[in-house]
Amino acid sequence: MSFTVNKEIATFGGKLLKLSHESKATNTKMDVNVYLPAQYENDPSATKIPVLLYLSGLECTPNNASEKAFWQPFANKYGFAVVFPDTSPRGANVEGEDETWYLGTAASFYVDSTTSKWSKNYKMYSYINDELQSELASYLTKLDFNNISISGHSMGGYGALMIFLKNPSKYKTVSAFSPVANVHDNKWSELCFANYLGQEKSSWDQYDILKLIKSYNGPTPEILIHLGTKDPFLNELKSKLILDASKGTKFEGKVDYNFVEGYDHSYYYVSSFVDEHAKHHAKYLGLADN
Amino acid sequence: MSFTVNKEIATFGGKLLKLSHESKATNTKMDVNVYLPAQYENDPSATKIPVLLYLSGLECTPNNASEKAFWQPFANKYGFAVVFPDTSPRGANVEGEDETWYLGTAASFYVDSTTSKWSKNYKMYSYINDELQSELASYLTKLDFNNISISGHSMGGYGALMIFLKNPSKYKTVSAFSPVANVHDNKWSELCFANYLGQEKSSWDQYDILKLIKSYNGPTPEILIHLGTKDPFLNELKSKLILDASKGTKFEGKVDYNFVEGYDHSYYYVSSFVDEHAKHHAKYLGLADN
Repeated sequence: MSFTVNKEIATFGGKLLKLSHESKATNTKMDVNVYLPAQYENDPSATKIPVLLYLSGLECTPNNASEKAFWQPFANKYGFAVVFPDTSPRGANVEGEDETWYLGTAASFYVDSTTSKWSKNYKMYSYINDELQSELASYLTKLDFNNISISGHSMGGYGALMIFLKNPSKYKTVSAFSPVANVHDNKWSELCFANYLGQEKSSWDQYDILKLIKSYNGPTPEILIHLGTKDPFLNELKSKLILDASKGTKFEGKVDYNFVEGYDHSYYYVSSFVDEHAKHHAKYLGLADN
Repeated sequence: MSFTVNKEIATFGGKLLKLSHESKATNTKMDVNVYLPAQYENDPSATKIPVLLYLSGLECTPNNASEKAFWQPFANKYGFAVVFPDTSPRGANVEGEDETWYLGTAASFYVDSTTSKWSKNYKMYSYINDELQSELASYLTKLDFNNISISGHSMGGYGALMIFLKNPSKYKTVSAFSPVANVHDNKWSELCFANYLGQEKSSWDQYDILKLIKSYNGPTPEILIHLGTKDPFLNELKSKLILDASKGTKFEGKVDYNFVEGYDHSYYYVSSFVDEHAKHHAKYLGLADN
């Protein structure tokens, strides 16, 4: 299987590809945007371009972050690609998938569903962590999927941390904007997890970053986290629990947690700190600050 | 009259205000976004903050450019404010104002209408050039409306050039992304001008930048223009006519015209060159490049 190029857009010296492909993991067509820095086309020797996966939050398509988060100028400056996956399967025709803004469409929480109702399509963990990467590696051959890192916002900040922690050594580092910290105490994830994984809450633990951080046994880069003091979802997110959970683990002292004064939950906030996150990822992807 | 603050958003160190006010020029409520750089609040001595007016194109509200054009980090770096006005009155209830995407709502072409049908509301030239500035000067008293410049995109690129050329000495400089050049040979402006100014085409000349540039008698800063080679509207825009029209005028050699390879008409394109435009405006607004 390969990709359809729906649009190719020159931006910030490089190129944004709006792609779609048929996913075996989700049994649906999936959209994904990929930003290629200038050297992807211009530098014949550039065959090992690092990749950042950026997971968006509830309600987003791949286009929101592509348009408003402003990763592109920094990706082009440092020389990494950015992959913007979708936030769920779409059009899977699962009953109720479009009824609640934090369940179903655009609300996958990046897990692999095990329930009969959702499991045919809602396999976003496998999609993001395996299928999408191997498909893109075959299609965009100058990208180096052995040198990757991961970031995300809100539900996607949770997804980035969860996927990083479940795969020691796979991702060079992780960062998150306003991540959902506790899937056992969050009305969004509680509804999703009950649907995708069932009522037995112990089955949720495999995706619980507050537990995963304690059992993690792998390299420990710094983890960069931002959260705005005026985030309207502070009570759902509880992002600081990640810093607290790192105490006594290999990540103690490695969580760079920033509670930034006055900022909210929007892309106006995310874009304001993308430069710092880009610098963080560039460092761990082995790219010089120029 | 004053402004209602609908939202105040921390972004890139400064603050984006989403304002609305009752306009005497348009007889409607008007929305306007204003980005204030950090020193507006943080520097007690900053009482003379320069202002850039940014006029958006067809179909836009003040929010599109605020979210996608990426002026804010550069405005904050150099220390100027950015005013994002709306592109027309809204809800004026003029018959037909919502029927065609390039007539009426979001398609004012920034002129003062003289026809009985439109002239009660479609007075955007007076609104942008006079009323909005004096109202904002009273409301945001640290802004210096004696040190202003103007830019815009598409219809707004036309508007910026037209307003600059009609007001020698008022604006320190002007720049434009993909401006409509010839209002006498453009299906969008032809429909709008016939409606707003009447069928007598000589009445359009007062807003014709290709004529205004020839009669202009004032200071001549450089004019910065970008246009993408893959702009789908090349045949409507004909932006290069502005460079051609400058020959033999005071602006000969002063039009920095850039026909940029591969770029389209979207905010992906605009945002890619906003850094150059910001630097251009900062220079003429007397702000150091830091």
